Amino acid sequence: MKVAARAHVPPFAVMEIIAAANARRAAGEDVLNLCAGEPATGASDVVRQRAIELLTSGDLGYTEALGAPGLRAAIAAHYGDWYGVALDPARIAVTTGSSGGFMLAFLAAFDVGDRVALARPGYPAYTNILAALGCEVVELAAGPQTRFQPTVAMLEAAHATKPLDGLVVASPANPTGTMIDAAELEALADWCGEHGVRLISDEIYHGITYTDARVATAARYLGSGAVVVNSFSKYWAMTGWRLGWLVLPDDLVAPVDALAGNVALCPPALAQHAGIAAFSPEGMAAARENVERYAAARALLLSRLPELGWTHVAPADGAFYLYGDVSASGLDSVTWCARLLDEAGVALTPGTDFDPVDGSRYVRLSFASSVEVVRAAVDRIVAWQRTLATA
Amino acid sequence: MKVAARAHVPPFAVMEIIAAANARRAAGEDVLNLCAGEPATGASDVVRQRAIELLTSGDLGYTEALGAPGLRAAIAAHYGDWYGVALDPARIAVTTGSSGGFMLAFLAAFDVGDRVALARPGYPAYTNILAALGCEVVELAAGPQTRFQPTVAMLEAAHATKPLDGLVVASPANPTGTMIDAAELEALADWCGEHGVRLISDEIYHGITYTDARVATAARYLGSGAVVVNSFSKYWAMTGWRLGWLVLPDDLVAPVDALAGNVALCPPALAQHAGIAAFSPEGMAAARENVERYAAARALLLSRLPELGWTHVAPADGAFYLYGDVSASGLDSVTWCARLLDEAGVALTPGTDFDPVDGSRYVRLSFASSVEVVRAAVDRIVAWQRTLATA
Repeated sequence: MKVAARAHVPPFAVMEIIAAANARRAAGEDVLNLCAGEPATGASDVVRQRAIELLTSGDLGYTEALGAPGLRAAIAAHYGDWYGVALDPARIAVTTGSSGGFMLAFLAAFDVGDRVALARPGYPAYTNILAALGCEVVELAAGPQTRFQPTVAMLEAAHATKPLDGLVVASPANPTGTMIDAAELEALADWCGEHGVRLISDEIYHGITYTDARVATAARYLGSGAVVVNSFSKYWAMTGWRLGWLVLPDDLVAPVDALAGNVALCPPALAQHAGIAAFSPEGMAAARENVERYAAARALLLSRLPELGWTHVAPADGAFYLYGDVSASGLDSVTWCARLLDEAGVALTPGTDFDPVDGSRYVRLSFASSVEVVRAAVDRIVAWQRTLATA
Repeated sequence: MKVAARAHVPPFAVMEIIAAANARRAAGEDVLNLCAGEPATGASDVVRQRAIELLTSGDLGYTEALGAPGLRAAIAAHYGDWYGVALDPARIAVTTGSSGGFMLAFLAAFDVGDRVALARPGYPAYTNILAALGCEVVELAAGPQTRFQPTVAMLEAAHATKPLDGLVVASPANPTGTMIDAAELEALADWCGEHGVRLISDEIYHGITYTDARVATAARYLGSGAVVVNSFSKYWAMTGWRLGWLVLPDDLVAPVDALAGNVALCPPALAQHAGIAAFSPEGMAAARENVERYAAARALLLSRLPELGWTHVAPADGAFYLYGDVSASGLDSVTWCARLLDEAGVALTPGTDFDPVDGSRYVRLSFASSVEVVRAAVDRIVAWQRTLATA
């Protein structure tokens, strides 16, 4: 029996690391797991408490395909609070995590054969979903020189080869944590609007930032056709709840509504109704406390960068990742990570999962766990790297 | 800015009915809503209680892409209990509702341009998802003569025109409630296996049946490449929880795993962990009680069929729908439904949503609500039909 060609998704190297880490743990050895892009804490107490109330007395049936009206209104209001952007709740589509949002945005914006550009390194699911939907992914090689972010110059070069139909950006980005500042985002949005290129802006790490610069949202550029993707998974630490949203330009509201009803019916009802509480003062305070924890872990990491000796380290202005070049070790990153786990009990993610070309020089360290775990991991990595140097 | 051609999903006529029903209700007039394919009750107490416990003390982070091991094992065991089929839990992929299951199954099995057959009338999301994924939908016209189900003869005719790549069947079916018996299902599965056609069997109404005949599962035909789609939404009344599953043949396990991680990350964690309790004695008993309620409503409906005077009524052996021909009224079904709502306050679904060709003769009545509501609705329909006859 035939299996679809589009089902041949490249495997993630981190899956081998996770399997080895689990095997190590099952054998009674300890592992410090800094692979996962997942907050160590879960949803705030106020969200959990609201969910308990709803389980006792609430209606957990289907909601509207675009989401429960109360949650759409709360999300729209959040854009006023955080960004000073007035949004009609009709622009908001609640989705099943950002994953559900990407699927809907890509289906609504791109046909089979359309060319969609994105930065390399980047989150591999962008590429894999687009490829499964029959789109052509155009990788824009982005290194330390442009803070691992795409530029208008890169777009123009790719567009000149053959016209582009879309651009996916992420700020703060995974795996690098780098941001696109307000002027750059405006330049990208303007260029996309002028060239008929649909801009899709992944903003799931908004709120998790460590600089004074206010992170810019593409919700300012709906007039240029831009689409925003966001999620409750990272800032609000609600990973398993599978709740996210899109901010849509006028022309995509009806198409996404129609697609969502067919593709997903509706996002999880309990998560939607309880998720409104994430925007309460208690919910926002809990999220800020998480960010303070990540900030402490990040400060520790940056203070020990000289000991780590990694090069080309991305600024990590946001998100909770440190992406650095370990090629001075003489090892490729897959081998480096496998040996680090085997010899020192620390699990990191090889850069090859984010960048098939240059990723063999890089590793990603997630500091979403506690400061203590990060400190212990750095101690082990530094000691292990010394054994490499003297081998 | 371009909107994708594949985003042009045909609108559902029922959306107009629902909007009109909501407007009527907002104006203070009563409406009996028999549109929705949703149980009137929600999840059982045992599932809700387990969810409350998990919200107090549980880990609600990401699960494995194919689902939490405990739930996969419980689902596999259910095939032994209900069907006498021994299944390895590795065959089970937990999904975000059956919607998430269809998306994964279609992506794993079919490429752009592949030809996938299905019965008309049928659940419109099959067609709309397949079309969005670039597949060619081949409609098999199925009427009362074949109980609205496809046959091997129909498949052979379609395959002779141009080879098919897939077949989607549903038993019990939406909108007709008709079933495919064990011998017919085996014949379809055998034919598909011999001709390299991937059989995808929608079994979300299993358990909701009213005849002595045991409903047959395609999980017996994994060796022929068949895929089963199922859900907690109908039998277990967990619609808004967004929880379903696939039973996969060997060749699709790894592709679905890889796709699921990229397309969905994982199904909702709370629903997964609490969903295990759906298989407990209390969870199963609650589901059986719901089916008894549907059975009472169905018996009432069938006893009053002569008064309703609809023709070509599908047998409604399962699910909770009555699909009947109202063309004797002289009205097309969209007009019939709009006037019934306007003049008698009863909302049904026009058949055009399930069958673009012959659906203008049919309407679908959902009896998932209480016996009292169904009785009141029949009273009104019968009285209203008399006004038509004398007009």
